[in-house]
Amino acid sequence: MKQNNLSYKMYLVTDLFEGTEEELLAKVEKALEGGVTLVQLREKEADGKEFYERALRLKQLLDRFHVPLIINDRVDIALAVGAFGVHVGQDDLPLKVVRSLVGDMIVGVSVRTVQEAKKAVEDGADYIGVGAVFPTSTKLDAKGITKEELTEITGSVRIPAVAIGGITAGNIEKLNGTGIRGAAVVSAILKSQDPKKAAEELNEKLNIQ
Amino acid sequence: MKQNNLSYKMYLVTDLFEGTEEELLAKVEKALEGGVTLVQLREKEADGKEFYERALRLKQLLDRFHVPLIINDRVDIALAVGAFGVHVGQDDLPLKVVRSLVGDMIVGVSVRTVQEAKKAVEDGADYIGVGAVFPTSTKLDAKGITKEELTEITGSVRIPAVAIGGITAGNIEKLNGTGIRGAAVVSAILKSQDPKKAAEELNEKLNIQ
Repeated sequence: MKQNNLSYKMYLVTDLFEGTEEELLAKVEKALEGGVTLVQLREKEADGKEFYERALRLKQLLDRFHVPLIINDRVDIALAVGAFGVHVGQDDLPLKVVRSLVGDMIVGVSVRTVQEAKKAVEDGADYIGVGAVFPTSTKLDAKGITKEELTEITGSVRIPAVAIGGITAGNIEKLNGTGIRGAAVVSAILKSQDPKKAAEELNEKLNIQ
Repeated sequence: MKQNNLSYKMYLVTDLFEGTEEELLAKVEKALEGGVTLVQLREKEADGKEFYERALRLKQLLDRFHVPLIINDRVDIALAVGAFGVHVGQDDLPLKVVRSLVGDMIVGVSVRTVQEAKKAVEDGADYIGVGAVFPTSTKLDAKGITKEELTEITGSVRIPAVAIGGITAGNIEKLNGTGIRGAAVVSAILKSQDPKKAAEELNEKLNIQ
């Protein structure tokens, strides 16, 4: 199931979207046209049925673009829709448990420290999400990390690291040279009136080979 | 995994417990001493990690009493802790999907109508939870059903039906003769100062062979 050419460069995370499902899917489609390489569905407020049905619809859209779907937190929903991967935070099901349930599915973990990053590798993560790198409106309680800390974390592990938290076209260039393999973006794309252009601009400013 | 002698008679559901985990486990232990036959862990507010860890501890306790553990909603947590079963509502992952994920684990579904009950059987449920049979403090939005409706629902399917919602020692006898195989109880046991006696009293008043 894993693919070696998986690109983490422009990682769209759908979180607390204020709008209908149709609007969300329309925005994601534009973002895909703009070069989004990976999409994570995060639904902390939805019931299982709604989450599952939205995941199925989103997957149909992503499949047309050959872009992988990652499900946040709910391993059962990731399995049920045949997602490419699952992403968990430090308060979700423990990584080792997730790994035992999903086999060789891609598993990502949110970390804030070198220690958490190393633990993630030990426990079988395929990539880490590191943040919040900037103040963010979608996770008000997210602890911020400095550019130096980000660089230290990405340098401490061999698996890909993706920066997350408050990333916009105005600050994404600050992430260049930190060793990240991609940037995870929520509002800068989904709150944009032109998600395609937003994704293109973010993509252009981030120097990842 | 299924056992034919599974008793649904006194089905304790832990929901929105106001207290520490230690207090919850202590109350459940007393309730087990009082004859509880099945326990469902329902954690609509907890993060995955907390839910998982509580489920593991509860399962250790239940194993000592040879009482099966049912996990509410989160199929991944049911799988992760090796629960006996999983219980889903109409807004959770669809039953067919749940069945495809859990194999021959026990699966229960909440229903309010004959139509939902028949659909549950079609989709592979092992038992149904029917309610709310009385006004309840733990699910304020739960639609109430009459004794006649309950009897009609239990008579419409061959799988066991468990009544739920606001059941107390003061009203449980009204459920006799409705065809239910058990009563699911939250507050009447967990809010009691003497959960053992509460479970015994409820058990005594419910006529299930």
